Amino acid sequence: MPKAHHRSSRNAKPTPGFRGRIWIDGSEGTFIGYGRVILLERIREQGSITKASKSMQMAYRHAWDLVDSMNRQAKEPLVEMAKGGKGGGGARVTKAGERAIKRFRRFYDDFQSFLKREEKNSSPDGRTTEEAFP
Amino acid sequence: MPKAHHRSSRNAKPTPGFRGRIWIDGSEGTFIGYGRVILLERIREQGSITKASKSMQMAYRHAWDLVDSMNRQAKEPLVEMAKGGKGGGGARVTKAGERAIKRFRRFYDDFQSFLKREEKNSSPDGRTTEEAFP
Repeated sequence: MPKAHHRSSRNAKPTPGFRGRIWIDGSEGTFIGYGRVILLERIREQGSITKASKSMQMAYRHAWDLVDSMNRQAKEPLVEMAKGGKGGGGARVTKAGERAIKRFRRFYDDFQSFLKREEKNSSPDGRTTEEAFP
Repeated sequence: MPKAHHRSSRNAKPTPGFRGRIWIDGSEGTFIGYGRVILLERIREQGSITKASKSMQMAYRHAWDLVDSMNRQAKEPLVEMAKGGKGGGGARVTKAGERAIKRFRRFYDDFQSFLKREEKNSSPDGRTTEEAFP
């Protein structure tokens, strides 16, 4: 199961280096970001928004809102929700959802490579960032 | 004078597309980011932290803290502050500061090119992001 956070702890000592965050905006603001892709991947694994949100320590309502936001902004829904049953029916990632996951993951991987490349170019002698940067 | 914000208004309708934010971490957390570089550039133009912070609608105390954070984390100070006088003395961007501005600007420009390239590769037919992405 992929990690839900970039850092293992928010209190961990920072590691010097080139950092960043990426996302894709739609017509209403954020369309896809790292957390949303993790949510899609968990829905694919768990088959329900309830289980997916629990596995990420995310409130069900928040997860539902994120899925709704993605579905509203996409040309075709990324997640199909079955109705009815106690606690709602199951949820399924569509083919459009699979393509969205794949494309964001590629964007994300390319970005990690970009950051490494930029950092390396900025400190060619291997010194730590705060020593080399100024 | 460069713009202090990425968007002209926080209430503007979002434009679909690939977006992101970059910064450089030092030993204490953020070392250099977009706002800090704008502050350095304003100090260079205005010759004082007071004037620079005013031109960015930033509290003097906040600007001072950002400069102090950069100076603490850099090998050599990025800003030299003259002491004394009403409202504090002047401030000057050092050679190390000039190098920091230049390198962050290059990182930033490379990142804008990266985002454009990724967006183009993801929608080769020129459709808008939310149409093309899923």
